Amino acid sequence: MKIKNIAIVGGTHGNEYTGVYAIRKLRIDQIQKRWSELNIQLVIGNPRAYEKCVRFIDSDLNRAFLRRDLENFDLASYEANRAKIINQIIGPKDSPKTDFMIDIHTTTANMGVSIILVGTSANEYRIASYIQSKMHGCHIYLIPAEAYGDRSEHSFLSSLAPHGFALEVGPVPNGVVRHDCFDKIMTVIHLAFEFIQANNAGALIEGNETIEIFRHREHVEFPRDAEGQINSIIHQNIQDKDYEPLKKGDPIFLTLEGNEIVYEKDETLYPVFINEAAYYNTNIAFSLTEKIKINL
Amino acid sequence: MKIKNIAIVGGTHGNEYTGVYAIRKLRIDQIQKRWSELNIQLVIGNPRAYEKCVRFIDSDLNRAFLRRDLENFDLASYEANRAKIINQIIGPKDSPKTDFMIDIHTTTANMGVSIILVGTSANEYRIASYIQSKMHGCHIYLIPAEAYGDRSEHSFLSSLAPHGFALEVGPVPNGVVRHDCFDKIMTVIHLAFEFIQANNAGALIEGNETIEIFRHREHVEFPRDAEGQINSIIHQNIQDKDYEPLKKGDPIFLTLEGNEIVYEKDETLYPVFINEAAYYNTNIAFSLTEKIKINL
Repeated sequence: MKIKNIAIVGGTHGNEYTGVYAIRKLRIDQIQKRWSELNIQLVIGNPRAYEKCVRFIDSDLNRAFLRRDLENFDLASYEANRAKIINQIIGPKDSPKTDFMIDIHTTTANMGVSIILVGTSANEYRIASYIQSKMHGCHIYLIPAEAYGDRSEHSFLSSLAPHGFALEVGPVPNGVVRHDCFDKIMTVIHLAFEFIQANNAGALIEGNETIEIFRHREHVEFPRDAEGQINSIIHQNIQDKDYEPLKKGDPIFLTLEGNEIVYEKDETLYPVFINEAAYYNTNIAFSLTEKIKINL
Repeated sequence: MKIKNIAIVGGTHGNEYTGVYAIRKLRIDQIQKRWSELNIQLVIGNPRAYEKCVRFIDSDLNRAFLRRDLENFDLASYEANRAKIINQIIGPKDSPKTDFMIDIHTTTANMGVSIILVGTSANEYRIASYIQSKMHGCHIYLIPAEAYGDRSEHSFLSSLAPHGFALEVGPVPNGVVRHDCFDKIMTVIHLAFEFIQANNAGALIEGNETIEIFRHREHVEFPRDAEGQINSIIHQNIQDKDYEPLKKGDPIFLTLEGNEIVYEKDETLYPVFINEAAYYNTNIAFSLTEKIKINL
């Protein structure tokens, strides 16, 4: 399958500055001229949230792309409206003009370079595999259909196009641009263009034949007191250990009273998004994934 | 001089969670019982900003303690009002009931443990020296009178008491508690109590005889375009290099066009608060300090 129309989005969350700077850089570099066989759209996802250095104004834009919400004109929030505009630019969701997209994010967790897939097409696996083969510390994290509905019913912005992914780079604080994360984002984008252009021309450039995928299983919540207030911190044993195995008995929390809380499952799983700032208000401390292998 | 009345404040900036958790921990531990000869007040600086996970509601609380602002009842902002309440609890500024205070902060910059002095009393130097002698990576940063007015005219919360400091620990993203930073804050507080109690009892516990102090010189702003928009990022050459020497010719910024901007002064100075999220809106990229030695 040939990929012609591409969208790159940054600043879907307004306080994740690095993606916005990446879009500004791509504009300054006149990236369309360099990859003239592709048709590239560059979009700032949530410009108003970026101005205010907040994740969102009213509600999370990256949960606003359910088909039923895009069709519901009674929704009043800034992000519900903004999602409809982005759906016009990149979509429409049922019949998108965009073949492939990358939605750039950053995280306060030590996620390195994470390619977050919402779909499982061979093309997406191949492009992710190619990027992974060229970048040290690049992981593939799959949030599968059964967790969020199929692609057409997925709420992520990256579900608008038939192929693509959300790109998460970290650790980086909100409201900050780090040179190292900025470079990693630019590298992923150029590797994606490189793969797509070669693939369109029938050239064989491929990544690894077998890829390791971290498949979403569940969220783990912070322990809370009787009033519902978080009363523990994430244990230093797992801080910054995203994608590393978590085994029964490993400390995961330290209560303010000074007690360790340990991981109690018999199954070894792999935590991700450990200590992501945006998830405190939903009490999520980290997520758990299983590691699977896929032969391409 | 004996120190009896102590105040520990956390959450002066609402999105610097670790200080709030430290205050909650000190309350749970019933710290007053452990140091029964001291009179310890524990204060959450900006509870409403903490609830909303923002630095402040209307204006920066840690710039609200100028005497003239504390006396001006026409000021309407949440923080102008909150400052007057804190002045009642810890102050009043002209004749404070508090002998010594620590105002806990975190930073997105790699500042390790930084003791930020607003005054230069022998007591403050001695206590800072003691803490430094016990903690690896602890720096003393002096923001001297001529930069901000004398103590009584200083705008920082920590200027309310005759002795004390702001404690900065980092790097930590806003809206996140890191176990390592949490432990460092608790250690500094206990070292301060230890020194004060011994000193009150006439016991000789001292730190290093000579201390190294980083004295504030100036802020360095981000390069900006014709519209005033920041158009450069902090160069990886200095990212995370707080307190390390900056020499003529060292790259400090990378423009979005891809050009390096170098440090041009002949004098070697020491950058601090490199890439602090809260300073983007005032265009400050980092501050410069000179290193001086003081014999106690």
